[in-house]
Amino acid sequence: MSGVAPAADVLAAGGPRLAGLLERVEGRLAEASGGYGDDLAGHVAKTLAAGGKRLRPTLVFIAAGEASSAELVEAGVAVELLHMATLVHDDVLDAAALRRGKPTVFAAGGRAAATATGDLLFSRAFAVLAATGSAEAVRCLSDASTALARGELMQREDAWSATVTTERYLERCRLKTARLFEAACRLGALLGEPGPAAAPGLGGFGARIGVAFQILDDVLDVSGPTERTGKPRGTDLLDGTVTLPLILARERDPDLRELDLRSAAAGPEEVVALCDRIAATGALDDARATALDHVADGKRELDRVDLAPEQRSLLDLAADRAVERYA
Amino acid sequence: MSGVAPAADVLAAGGPRLAGLLERVEGRLAEASGGYGDDLAGHVAKTLAAGGKRLRPTLVFIAAGEASSAELVEAGVAVELLHMATLVHDDVLDAAALRRGKPTVFAAGGRAAATATGDLLFSRAFAVLAATGSAEAVRCLSDASTALARGELMQREDAWSATVTTERYLERCRLKTARLFEAACRLGALLGEPGPAAAPGLGGFGARIGVAFQILDDVLDVSGPTERTGKPRGTDLLDGTVTLPLILARERDPDLRELDLRSAAAGPEEVVALCDRIAATGALDDARATALDHVADGKRELDRVDLAPEQRSLLDLAADRAVERYA
Repeated sequence: MSGVAPAADVLAAGGPRLAGLLERVEGRLAEASGGYGDDLAGHVAKTLAAGGKRLRPTLVFIAAGEASSAELVEAGVAVELLHMATLVHDDVLDAAALRRGKPTVFAAGGRAAATATGDLLFSRAFAVLAATGSAEAVRCLSDASTALARGELMQREDAWSATVTTERYLERCRLKTARLFEAACRLGALLGEPGPAAAPGLGGFGARIGVAFQILDDVLDVSGPTERTGKPRGTDLLDGTVTLPLILARERDPDLRELDLRSAAAGPEEVVALCDRIAATGALDDARATALDHVADGKRELDRVDLAPEQRSLLDLAADRAVERYA
Repeated sequence: MSGVAPAADVLAAGGPRLAGLLERVEGRLAEASGGYGDDLAGHVAKTLAAGGKRLRPTLVFIAAGEASSAELVEAGVAVELLHMATLVHDDVLDAAALRRGKPTVFAAGGRAAATATGDLLFSRAFAVLAATGSAEAVRCLSDASTALARGELMQREDAWSATVTTERYLERCRLKTARLFEAACRLGALLGEPGPAAAPGLGGFGARIGVAFQILDDVLDVSGPTERTGKPRGTDLLDGTVTLPLILARERDPDLRELDLRSAAAGPEEVVALCDRIAATGALDDARATALDHVADGKRELDRVDLAPEQRSLLDLAADRAVERYA
């Protein structure tokens, strides 16, 4: 996923409440990096400080209405810690040198330190959330965590495959990305103003926005431009990750259907040419349309929930931003 | 750690209550392997079925007095799941082919599957425990999990080192092994008959027994015999793990002090000779004595707690068995 700042207009519409909650998350994340002994503390602190959009905490808070309790902050911290735990373990598996332009824990400390750091972040996520006293909240995060592990594995199983269907791709997006978006919105409902009765509706919203977000990420990987995404075009394809643009392009272009991804994405130059071929089929527009369908579905989920007009429009705005990051 | 069955006399003294609780744990562990999608389910099921002593669930139950609630079973399941999660990740880092005589998840499914399986077991541990509704219980497990990650990292940092002190070794034992023993006993107190007021005393008992258990494990690695431990002598030394027998032997034998572990433990034959040299210094008796001191300290912790005589003698018996596995 790209490392842009939170959408400025969502932040603006969220006002001082949202800004204040996100600031409290930063403070708690910094605290969470202490008390582990020197070595791990350094890795944890660097991981947390490396930033990112804090998109998942933002979802917790905008799902929570006007509430701004300590429990809500803890839920925001917990979803971010879980997200980071999975990134640290992914970087071990990918032997990745950089993330968000900084050395990964794997690069700085090696395989053992990165595995331990990820395990520690997992544990902290659940400890922080358990402190809210809500077993339902912990279960919600744990279910999401299970889904993330399955999604990550599915992605690796499907690497380089020529037979990944749109259906299987969408299932992977649900597991790998959307279930944590769903959990964030559910947690906001559970611990915030809307309450447990609103959790299914807000969770359904989060799940669909999450799929849309992942599709757009995959579109941007092919379309670029690099100056805006901050990473070379085709980075995912280089890793063998088969995403919706490639799946749709293969349906449209018989030559692409026969293509062996390992040779077509053998190096940075080849992969840019492949991105151009995918774009030439019109697959990017189709993929964007699929993302927009998910956004519309997500908004429809909100019709089931009784929300104040201000909260509804903030959620609608966040949904739009999930797919209009560089529109 | 060696793969022996639970001490028969502890099981016998625990009677039908303990046997029944452990049977319920097996059933719940089997359930916990379902619902993840086929690939992960297979790895999880094999990991759980591979057995082990179920020592940590046993500690939960004998710390709980006469209680045998569903919450207690969940706590037993949670500590076992967490223990297994760390084993699966350790096997990835060690690129280990076998555990308890069966192929590891790493060997069977590769690095990605094993990392995901470990992450999933972590998540399930917390989900299961959260279902008890006790945030204090989840915090307890999370603190232990953080300690395990730190201890594992410490062990890898100290590998092959000639300067590990007894103090640092004991701190590693506390983090890597004892904190989960402590958590098991605390959970038994919290969710069982003794209640929260008894948690510090029973937790202190578990912590000391855990250190004793680890020391004895390290003694057995050097002493063997292989026919009883089920693994070649010096297995830990071959990995560069510096344990108490070696530390004490170095204090007693100037030649050992100068020794470079990498060459002294270069292969299976060299390492057996090294084990003999360590044993010749009398270091194994000293290490055993240190373990016994911890057992005595552990029993003294129980003096702080008001326990029925039957529970007290069961705990004393379990404490003795932690260091008399092959006495």
